[in-house]
Amino acid sequence: MPAVQITLLEGRTTEQKRKMAKRITDVLVEDGGANPAAVVVTFVEVPRDSYASGGVLICDKQQNPPK
Amino acid sequence: MPAVQITLLEGRTTEQKRKMAKRITDVLVEDGGANPAAVVVTFVEVPRDSYASGGVLICDKQQNPPK
Amino acid sequence: MPAVQITLLEGRTTEQKRKMAKRITDVLVEDGGANPAAVVVTFVEVPRDSYASGGVLICDKQQNPPK
Amino acid sequence: MPAVQITLLEGRTTEQKRKMAKRITDVLVEDGGANPAAVVVTFVEVPRDSYASGGVLICDKQQNPPK
Amino acid sequence: MPAVQITLLEGRTTEQKRKMAKRITDVLVEDGGANPAAVVVTFVEVPRDSYASGGVLICDKQQNPPK
Amino acid sequence: MPAVQITLLEGRTTEQKRKMAKRITDVLVEDGGANPAAVVVTFVEVPRDSYASGGVLICDKQQNPPK
Repeated sequence: MPAVQITLLEGRTTEQKRKMAKRITDVLVEDGGANPAAVVVTFVEVPRDSYASGGVLICDKQQNPPK
Repeated sequence: MPAVQITLLEGRTTEQKRKMAKRITDVLVEDGGANPAAVVVTFVEVPRDSYASGGVLICDKQQNPPK
Repeated sequence: MPAVQITLLEGRTTEQKRKMAKRITDVLVEDGGANPAAVVVTFVEVPRDSYASGGVLICDKQQNPPK
Repeated sequence: MPAVQITLLEGRTTEQKRKMAKRITDVLVEDGGANPAAVVVTFVEVPRDSYASGGVLICDKQQNPPK
Repeated sequence: MPAVQITLLEGRTTEQKRKMAKRITDVLVEDGGANPAAVVVTFVEVPRDSYASGGVLICDKQQNPPK
Repeated sequence: MPAVQITLLEGRTTEQKRKMAKRITDVLVEDGGANPAAVVVTFVEVPRDSYASGGVLICDKQQNPPK
């Protein structure tokens, strides 16, 4: 334990996921008292029309992306 | 808050997901007292052989679909 | 299908959850083409120190709540 | 009820998922008292760089796979 | 891998959860090719007013339970 | 985005959750390119008989804890 599910937009590289998995595991060990071998991290990657905040899909927010 | 995960069969259009995300956010605000800006909705889309009810995969139920 | 998990702060009444479950099911049927009998909605309720946005727990944001 | 989400590496066949969905449903009925018709099982399949244990991605563990 | 989340009504005993965890792990090993040591199973238990199917909370379905 | 669910044994303090939420958000921003304001982290805390690895509940593993 613990089991961590990260739901995020697709497009992250393997290197980004490698770093995030390692660092998040470290956080759970250092601040949560977890056994490092037992930490599971999964990334569930979804397209931009499958994630909404404030009732608006991400794909719709990006039509005029801020600089 | 809240965070909503909807696991469903793939095949919905962006327009369908746009409407569902908007309306579900409205429900959480109107009936759940949520702050609209804080509502997150994600769609996790799976193929027909990755969803089962009653112990039977959806792809197996559709071999003789009812009219 | 679909299966919906709503992670939210504890404190909603049964009546609020009753309305949300009904209306969200209706949305999935009307806009997502779901079979109403097959829609599952679960509420996972967590305390104010188990939900964070922007890296800050909800319990810490409420110390000076806006009017 | 219950609703079961299985997050696993992609690559399982339909036949494997068919067997797992059926047997897991049976377990929930026999040992958990579930109504079989109400059991939902979903498989969320992720690539080898989206699953980590012990802080290490599965894709990195397989570079020198044990015989 | 895999990671399994079972969302179910509260009220199962430790013995029931013990059996389910063991048997579901066996299924994933036998039919899914999982490494047994790597299988994680979690039970997320919710009250009867936090689980709905067909848009109706379980607590409302049980008012006139069938014999 | 992203939305993070951490399923873990109950017993963490608010201070532990505060630190984990902050640091995990930082990781997602620094290594995942996330917008910090949009990161949601939830902790789903379960008792020792609701979490199993290797088919064995945590409560059963702790009967003779290693020094």
